[in-house]
Amino acid sequence: MATIATLPDAADNPAIAAQEKILSLPLTEVRRMADAIRVLAIDAVEQAKSGHPGMPLGMADAATVLFSKFLKYDAADPRWADRDRFVLSAGHGSMLLYAWLHLSGHAGMAMDDLKRFRQLHSVAAGHPEYGEHPAIETTTGPLGQGLANAVGMALAERHLAARFGKSLVDHRTWVIAGDGCLMEGISHEAASLAGHFGLSKLCVLWDDNGICIDGEVSMTSSDDVLKRFQSYGWAVKRVDGHDPVAVEKALEGAVRSRKPTLIACRTIIGFAAPTKAGTAGSHGSPLGAKEADAAKQALGWNAAPFEVPEDIKANWEAAGRRSAGTRRSWLKRLANHPQKAEFERAMAGKLPEGWHEAAAAYRQRVAEEKPKAATRVSSQKALEVLVPAIPELVGGSADLTGSNNTNVRGIPVLSTANFGGRYVHWGIREHGMAAAMNGMAVHGGIIPYSGTFLAFADYMRPSIRLAALMRARAIHVLTHDSIGLGEDGPTHQPVETLASLRAIPNVAVFRPADAMETAECWELAVQRADGPSVLALSRQNLPALRQEAGENRSARGGYVLAEASGPRKATLIATGSEVQLAMAAREALEADGVPAAVVSLPCWELFALQDEGYRESVLGTAPRIGIEAAISFGWDRWLGADGVFIGMTGFGASAPAEDLFRHFGITAEAVVAAVRRKLA
Amino acid sequence: MATIATLPDAADNPAIAAQEKILSLPLTEVRRMADAIRVLAIDAVEQAKSGHPGMPLGMADAATVLFSKFLKYDAADPRWADRDRFVLSAGHGSMLLYAWLHLSGHAGMAMDDLKRFRQLHSVAAGHPEYGEHPAIETTTGPLGQGLANAVGMALAERHLAARFGKSLVDHRTWVIAGDGCLMEGISHEAASLAGHFGLSKLCVLWDDNGICIDGEVSMTSSDDVLKRFQSYGWAVKRVDGHDPVAVEKALEGAVRSRKPTLIACRTIIGFAAPTKAGTAGSHGSPLGAKEADAAKQALGWNAAPFEVPEDIKANWEAAGRRSAGTRRSWLKRLANHPQKAEFERAMAGKLPEGWHEAAAAYRQRVAEEKPKAATRVSSQKALEVLVPAIPELVGGSADLTGSNNTNVRGIPVLSTANFGGRYVHWGIREHGMAAAMNGMAVHGGIIPYSGTFLAFADYMRPSIRLAALMRARAIHVLTHDSIGLGEDGPTHQPVETLASLRAIPNVAVFRPADAMETAECWELAVQRADGPSVLALSRQNLPALRQEAGENRSARGGYVLAEASGPRKATLIATGSEVQLAMAAREALEADGVPAAVVSLPCWELFALQDEGYRESVLGTAPRIGIEAAISFGWDRWLGADGVFIGMTGFGASAPAEDLFRHFGITAEAVVAAVRRKLA
Repeated sequence: MATIATLPDAADNPAIAAQEKILSLPLTEVRRMADAIRVLAIDAVEQAKSGHPGMPLGMADAATVLFSKFLKYDAADPRWADRDRFVLSAGHGSMLLYAWLHLSGHAGMAMDDLKRFRQLHSVAAGHPEYGEHPAIETTTGPLGQGLANAVGMALAERHLAARFGKSLVDHRTWVIAGDGCLMEGISHEAASLAGHFGLSKLCVLWDDNGICIDGEVSMTSSDDVLKRFQSYGWAVKRVDGHDPVAVEKALEGAVRSRKPTLIACRTIIGFAAPTKAGTAGSHGSPLGAKEADAAKQALGWNAAPFEVPEDIKANWEAAGRRSAGTRRSWLKRLANHPQKAEFERAMAGKLPEGWHEAAAAYRQRVAEEKPKAATRVSSQKALEVLVPAIPELVGGSADLTGSNNTNVRGIPVLSTANFGGRYVHWGIREHGMAAAMNGMAVHGGIIPYSGTFLAFADYMRPSIRLAALMRARAIHVLTHDSIGLGEDGPTHQPVETLASLRAIPNVAVFRPADAMETAECWELAVQRADGPSVLALSRQNLPALRQEAGENRSARGGYVLAEASGPRKATLIATGSEVQLAMAAREALEADGVPAAVVSLPCWELFALQDEGYRESVLGTAPRIGIEAAISFGWDRWLGADGVFIGMTGFGASAPAEDLFRHFGITAEAVVAAVRRKLA
Repeated sequence: MATIATLPDAADNPAIAAQEKILSLPLTEVRRMADAIRVLAIDAVEQAKSGHPGMPLGMADAATVLFSKFLKYDAADPRWADRDRFVLSAGHGSMLLYAWLHLSGHAGMAMDDLKRFRQLHSVAAGHPEYGEHPAIETTTGPLGQGLANAVGMALAERHLAARFGKSLVDHRTWVIAGDGCLMEGISHEAASLAGHFGLSKLCVLWDDNGICIDGEVSMTSSDDVLKRFQSYGWAVKRVDGHDPVAVEKALEGAVRSRKPTLIACRTIIGFAAPTKAGTAGSHGSPLGAKEADAAKQALGWNAAPFEVPEDIKANWEAAGRRSAGTRRSWLKRLANHPQKAEFERAMAGKLPEGWHEAAAAYRQRVAEEKPKAATRVSSQKALEVLVPAIPELVGGSADLTGSNNTNVRGIPVLSTANFGGRYVHWGIREHGMAAAMNGMAVHGGIIPYSGTFLAFADYMRPSIRLAALMRARAIHVLTHDSIGLGEDGPTHQPVETLASLRAIPNVAVFRPADAMETAECWELAVQRADGPSVLALSRQNLPALRQEAGENRSARGGYVLAEASGPRKATLIATGSEVQLAMAAREALEADGVPAAVVSLPCWELFALQDEGYRESVLGTAPRIGIEAAISFGWDRWLGADGVFIGMTGFGASAPAEDLFRHFGITAEAVVAAVRRKLA
């Protein structure tokens, strides 16, 4: 099958010609192709008066070998599902990526775009931004994230190959990473995962230039990086990154390897810049006109700025078409493939037919059974319906499976023995998990979900932010969502975590109150194709508050769960486990002749999207009492200047949950008392 | 000197007796001491019906060797400055720590405290909480943090030894860590730092039990951990963790080592529990009465619950006094030491005399010079005054020195060649930096400060949270605090970061508007001994807005920077770089006959602490306009239901800063227009 996959279509002569041409280029021409990247990087950074020339200058040689002879892509269709993925983890070197996309003939990356590098509305943004250009596989810049995304992509490839077969899914993942990526902690989690899963189709080219921003890497690190990666089960190799033959040989080795491969490319940062090469000075600012000219002179480059000689352009365009035949063969295989429709649906991120009926039937069951259960357990019940109905759901937990309730009976574990499995034991690697999930989500074909404690969302936060920025569908199941977790104490008790997640644009934070809302929120999360979702779930049991199963009431973010029996004297607004307290308080108030309504607010972001009329009708004009076992930060928006908040004012404590709710004054009695004070 | 430091005071016979006794104990007695830890852990967890028996059962043998023969401490004075530090990084095994503290005779950890394990107000909280007991060196539970704290403690020891000499500072740092600690990314950053700094007095005992919560570690990790630590420059050793002789030999090796040492202690989790030992089932819940009894039987333990036979207690108490003579010798050396007062002042966290005069003189200079400068540059100017004036200030940057402006001319770099240096090149290790800083802060004698971009606060967040929980004085210099950083784009532009940090209890988030406020905020940060501070600083230049230098106006968190010329028609409330916009808008409004005041709000937390009268006088009753180049989350508190917010509504973009402020409508014109609409 492998030979079929890489054999060009014999009928497609231009493609064969491109492939033959590019594979037989003399070294001098390869070097000139690399120089084209270098010069465009210099020119664009000079023009922008801002940017990072050092990395493109240093890595152009190795990258040219990769882009022209190894990376499987067709510039005519950058979204070809079976393309190799290329991740520029050292995202500050974005001009390397943009120059390559331009030179290899990708639409949408014209010379004018390069001239507008780092300007408003340019696709050539300061760092590669997912969505700005179809060939940008992921957003990078925050160091180490791209590497970890790539591990997720490589894992996604293995899974989808198991699901759809190698004739449809058989591609590699290539990464260029810098010292920064490898010094970040996330690189440990990511590399360890890749080694554990034996992701042999993952290859990382490390720009081993010995320079960091503060000076020499040796000033801050004494790691033996190759030995370290060997300890994770990687194959490692060190080459002169400016020697295309050595790089080619190393990449061939990576293709043959049964392990993920790290290639240390010894390079000179700012290569060719006469005074700045080999120094931190070339890293993050323009070379300056004089140094730029001198660098071009050193390269023997005579063309005007933003001009590339035709022969070099022709070579690059041939590189961009090298796999065109491979793609056409693949398209033919797809056309005849029994799983064609399913594959295309999955890769497009569309949910399968029937899933919603299954979910609706489950909600009907919940309405009838009215289970008293922790929402983490209700989440598991929802997963028991959704995971079988939606084959793209692939998830797991960062070693808290039994606590997060993320597993589903009968769903096999994803492992080297069975890449088709759908349950992932992520290990104690929250950050690596979230970043790999981002990679899976942008790879396509997978809707990843995680599991950990809500308090540990902090460990994943840089990756959640990137999911939000990329609008990637990654779903985080975050249990033990308040002091309600009890004895583990303040380190494990989120108090500010809900606020801190609600603050991130594009993240939907769901905090359901009972089994019904949990089912509703899960439906909303899987349907939410344009951003990450968080499900904040209780450890402790909660009563069933909702009796009917028709409309997904959580879809509006907030709604009147129980209207007052007469003109409202108070509106009790709560989320999650505190909605039951609001209901109990309402009962006491009503019994005492104080008509009070209860508003459940499971998703602030969706509620904020409703029109003002709806929101005002829900929140009402009576005094508002907010109740959440968390700090008040952000609540003023819903409570107004006049509202009262019942919740936490600081960190929690270690004690049984009931004791804590009493100790911190988060009780129905406290709510009743607050209303009385307000009405007094 | 080393021999003097460890030689017991000859006049102190009981101490010598204790030392001799404990060092010559037969193995059977050592084992019974370990069993006392085991049994107390079993009993406390049973009593609490909650907790983690597996780790104490597994690590009791190795820990007993450490606590009785190596750890330098005196139960009579747990805050003795030159004690060895012990960090239970695997904080869930807290009963190991509490049992040891009780058995070794520490005051404040009575049997009654153990009986109240995990109950409200008990010092024996679910996880070890700094401040609950003087012998708890740091708060642990979130995995990997303790290990990284310990690196900071060991680095603090090296620095203070260089400053005060080995006769006052000569102690070791010991850690017990679990698989979770080592799988977390932070372990990479921390271990790499320790290796780079050659922290040979750091020793980590890894509870290598092969079990994680989801099952066997081999299910989720294939790392060769020892090889990995070797790659960082550590000495490594593997021993049977249940063999006290082997452990003792390994610890002796660690004491002799010129590198930090990792000792893999092969243990059986839940040791002695007949059915649960060696399984995840013993990790995180009570054994149950039957299994608990059987475990005690297997250990040959016949005492009633919470009872420890006198002979075992006597051995433990001897262990607790083993270094009493060493401490007395040290006290004598201290009494005669020329730096006694300075050492005591530094360790107590008191600022030196004269610092405030220097700071005040600097502010006077700022008032006269009225510099137009980025607040990151103003921060550097403040550091140029504070760092020489306060010897405890030891700081650096995560490889962004030139951008964060964290260095001070003439202050030497802290390195293996000069541990007395005070500038730390942390490398690209934000998380490790923040966690090590926590370790330095709780070690005492150092006020650590960091540097990175504000957007990357997310990488440090789990450690910032722990600093907040511990009320540790760690100061984070976070520059490039908005879209004002320009071309690097949305990955680097914080929009939600201010809100997310303001949400953490006990953190003071300072966002100064000019050089004067920057100086004021720095003073407040160094004075703030009971929690971490964040300084959010601009990349771009800002005008001098404050003309006078007397009172530290930032100390109240917010104040009227410019009062309206008549009865206020509007109050413009801003922070940091947007205060200048408010001032420009005010000028335009006043020129147009609309009296408007400008309120600068550099620190919300301090403003919230003011009495309501002050706050209302500052915020006024006129319509309020909030201006911050960030999202509005949290602003409603200051703006009221009726306010208007000018800021971001989502992520930023890549472009020159001025273009971005215009693009996102954060301009003086927009403020004026908002006021006009409001007044129309």
